[in-house]
Amino acid sequence: MPLIRPLKTLIAAGALSLLAVGPALAESAVELRGTGDLGVVIERATGSVALVDTTHKTVLKNIEGFGDLSHASVKFTRDARHAFVFGRDGGLTRLDLLTGEIDGRIIQGGNSIGGAISQDGRYVAVGNYEPGGVKVFDVETMELVVDVPATYKKADGTTDQAKVVGVVDVPGNMFVFSLFEAGEIWTLDMSTEEHEVTRYRDIGSMPYDALITANGRYYIAGLFGEDGMALLDLWHPEKGVQRILPDYGRGEERLPVYKMPHLEGWAMAGSQAFFPAVGRNEVLVADTRDWSLTQRIEVHGQPIFVMSRPDEQQVWVTFAHPNNDRVQVIDTRTHEVIETLSPGESILHKEFTPRGEHIWISARDSGHVVVYDTRTFEELARLPAESPSGIFFTHRAHRIGL
Amino acid sequence: MPLIRPLKTLIAAGALSLLAVGPALAESAVELRGTGDLGVVIERATGSVALVDTTHKTVLKNIEGFGDLSHASVKFTRDARHAFVFGRDGGLTRLDLLTGEIDGRIIQGGNSIGGAISQDGRYVAVGNYEPGGVKVFDVETMELVVDVPATYKKADGTTDQAKVVGVVDVPGNMFVFSLFEAGEIWTLDMSTEEHEVTRYRDIGSMPYDALITANGRYYIAGLFGEDGMALLDLWHPEKGVQRILPDYGRGEERLPVYKMPHLEGWAMAGSQAFFPAVGRNEVLVADTRDWSLTQRIEVHGQPIFVMSRPDEQQVWVTFAHPNNDRVQVIDTRTHEVIETLSPGESILHKEFTPRGEHIWISARDSGHVVVYDTRTFEELARLPAESPSGIFFTHRAHRIGL
Repeated sequence: MPLIRPLKTLIAAGALSLLAVGPALAESAVELRGTGDLGVVIERATGSVALVDTTHKTVLKNIEGFGDLSHASVKFTRDARHAFVFGRDGGLTRLDLLTGEIDGRIIQGGNSIGGAISQDGRYVAVGNYEPGGVKVFDVETMELVVDVPATYKKADGTTDQAKVVGVVDVPGNMFVFSLFEAGEIWTLDMSTEEHEVTRYRDIGSMPYDALITANGRYYIAGLFGEDGMALLDLWHPEKGVQRILPDYGRGEERLPVYKMPHLEGWAMAGSQAFFPAVGRNEVLVADTRDWSLTQRIEVHGQPIFVMSRPDEQQVWVTFAHPNNDRVQVIDTRTHEVIETLSPGESILHKEFTPRGEHIWISARDSGHVVVYDTRTFEELARLPAESPSGIFFTHRAHRIGL
Repeated sequence: MPLIRPLKTLIAAGALSLLAVGPALAESAVELRGTGDLGVVIERATGSVALVDTTHKTVLKNIEGFGDLSHASVKFTRDARHAFVFGRDGGLTRLDLLTGEIDGRIIQGGNSIGGAISQDGRYVAVGNYEPGGVKVFDVETMELVVDVPATYKKADGTTDQAKVVGVVDVPGNMFVFSLFEAGEIWTLDMSTEEHEVTRYRDIGSMPYDALITANGRYYIAGLFGEDGMALLDLWHPEKGVQRILPDYGRGEERLPVYKMPHLEGWAMAGSQAFFPAVGRNEVLVADTRDWSLTQRIEVHGQPIFVMSRPDEQQVWVTFAHPNNDRVQVIDTRTHEVIETLSPGESILHKEFTPRGEHIWISARDSGHVVVYDTRTFEELARLPAESPSGIFFTHRAHRIGL
């Protein structure tokens, strides 16, 4: 930015200590910059993270030391300066996007699956597989604020901690999550010091993942143990959990499922929801007003992520093995597949830029991330990354449930 | 943030020159910080801007030199580092939110009313009253890229430039705007070097403002010269401009209107639109599927801004003189007024924090901005400001049409 360049200053990390030791440039230079066009790419094989710039489509730095990052996810702080990375080893790691350095890391559980940051930005919640339950930490100090063991009574009368999945933030400074073995949905209210928990029981067998709609109203859990889904309307919690889409799942034939689809990726476009069928080469369409199934769209493979471009005019689909070498684009007006792309081998994740002009797609076994123009489908950049998986941009800091 | 503090460095503005002159702290210290929780408040009387921090609810700095800021609006760059301020004197001023300094200012027209930044972040468009037309500048260099005079043929056969209102950005790297005297809507395509303009003629008499829905699909212009509104469906431009809400406006009785309501503030909640009646103490509700009017909600005065909390569960309403000392809150589930607040005199604008936990409200004649908790309606902070009007937070950088 020519006009800005004179003001843009390369600043040594730790200017105060620099001032103490005199005018020598420290090793790592930190640039004064906005954080609105930053993002991270999980590099699962090396336990590292690629810090990226979505304006210049470049990798700024690769940062190591995050532990086991298979299936890792990321949440951003309210000021979009820090990323919290939830690792499979129970590690909770905070990355400073400006210095490109880890400035906090704890092992908070044995095996964590993801988490969320509260509406007010003060708390980060982590859902655990081992030993189960949810732990909530202060975003600034990373000290434990509340421990929710998620205890349930087993059939034999003894108690145990349930694996926690589908942790999301919702308005009212609440967290919502599901208990796998217990078949329950819980809400945790962080708006008062009581940290009140509300339990919804008998919601269905083995909730394995969940999604929250963009307005934070509908929490929907997918069930591994039976067909159908569990819906909690947070605007009307007094109605309890309802069952929707009774045929959704593997069905009586128990179709071979290569990988259970991600629910977080459900695409909402107007009053339509586009979502992955289980075990079938189909994207399903439902009317969100009554959750009735309205259409099946044939696609290249078993869909994993079905994501809406921010303007809702396109839905982009990735697939399970062995068809995970393609990405397809559906037009939400015609419901037709309008494009099939081949970004590489083992395509794992994708992320739209905030206003949707570009999409970034990770191809794990090709060792790169490909950036496309979503209007022309032109390839704009191909960036090297070590076994890239999840891609997350900082605008998520400002969205409910992201 | 205790754990971060050791890494957080107070850095003198212009560290390189600092290094050249030796270890002396320059006058203005610039903090390394994320830009996701920054914002600006327009101080219209003094032509200044208050730079604010929405996490700590504080004014960081007051910056002068923006010219005439009556009715000023603001757009943020893609990286959320800079704010472009559109002044009434035709000034286009760029503020660096990190240094708190103006780093670019041009007088690009005689009287500008607002503008937009393109989807790709490269272009800033300004709509002008005097001499009319739209000018598009490079966001980095602030050099003119394209000048669209918005010329139309008058009844006497001569041509003139029309006043341009309702400039918005939409997907496909386009700008959309309305021509007041001409009664036309134009689109300007910035995705190719041709900068193609498409005209929609005879859309109605004297479009005075416009709104774009959050997904960038519907562009709706309000008409000063007649009742009804003009709707352009950008997913189906071949259908041309349709007329909706035929009774919307001042009506045959020509009600006394204290101030034409802002259209930008239309609140969309699910398939309902909540919007200000013209000249009546009512908020109107329409079904966005067919744009039929479904309800009239009686409120405290003639509404000006009707804005939806990000979770769509509440709609907050400000009013025209002489009832501009109150703010009312409508529950979108029951359509009842659930709260009436008194933040001060001459309430002009309001802005929700990105995930909606707080709202900031400017009370011009009281010289302050009040921050409320939107769940408890508790007052959280009261910040001094010189005749505050518009409030804008950086998350707008990542939204279509904002």
